[in-house]
Amino acid sequence: MLLRLNHVALAVPDLMAASATYRATLGATVSEPRALGEHGVTVVFVELNNTKIELLEPLGDASPIAAFLAKNPKGGMHHLCYDVADIRAARDHLVAAGARVLGNGEPKIGAHGKPVLFLHPGDVHGTLTELEEV
Amino acid sequence: MLLRLNHVALAVPDLMAASATYRATLGATVSEPRALGEHGVTVVFVELNNTKIELLEPLGDASPIAAFLAKNPKGGMHHLCYDVADIRAARDHLVAAGARVLGNGEPKIGAHGKPVLFLHPGDVHGTLTELEEV
Repeated sequence: MLLRLNHVALAVPDLMAASATYRATLGATVSEPRALGEHGVTVVFVELNNTKIELLEPLGDASPIAAFLAKNPKGGMHHLCYDVADIRAARDHLVAAGARVLGNGEPKIGAHGKPVLFLHPGDVHGTLTELEEV
Repeated sequence: MLLRLNHVALAVPDLMAASATYRATLGATVSEPRALGEHGVTVVFVELNNTKIELLEPLGDASPIAAFLAKNPKGGMHHLCYDVADIRAARDHLVAAGARVLGNGEPKIGAHGKPVLFLHPGDVHGTLTELEEV
């Protein structure tokens, strides 16, 4: 079911500082910041040869990463996202296996414009896990 | 400097349970467990199309992931590892930029038999970051 690692998301308190670290200290190719108001984050993409890192900073009053940063004020690893071929088939398989899909159980359109869902981290050994339809 | 994402390491309290989740629930290709006594972990590789996930369980009395699991008893995202072409050149660049290399500052032979070093997470916005020479 899991095809490839789509991205690793890192929550950071200061996106410009983190962007500078990845560009200057780590020598990576880093995008300009992009505000995703409907997702409550501003994102910078760190482009690697095989996948990407997404640096996320909270945007607005109800950001989905605000609670994480309150617990981890320096930032940290927030979630992993994997590509799947058919997200509804994946969802049905996961629910049948006893995993909990966050929200109402229906895939939503994610930050890349494709259907996504999130699995409860308690069902994936502590790692918040996103699936995205390719 | 960063070439590709070599792996994402996830610490788990029960490697066989985590391995079963990735194989059966998430439908991934999962290796047999491998005990790495000198690194204080037993590892299972989750093979994706573009990179791999390493599931780590503590091994022995002085496992480097024991403190993490004490804080995160269900498990969680432990570190990211990136490939670099020349680890000593990378180290010199990082130190000049003010980043702290863990240990004595010299690369060590890592779990894949190649030179590695770890950067202090406080210098990488809360993410423990490993570099491995390809």
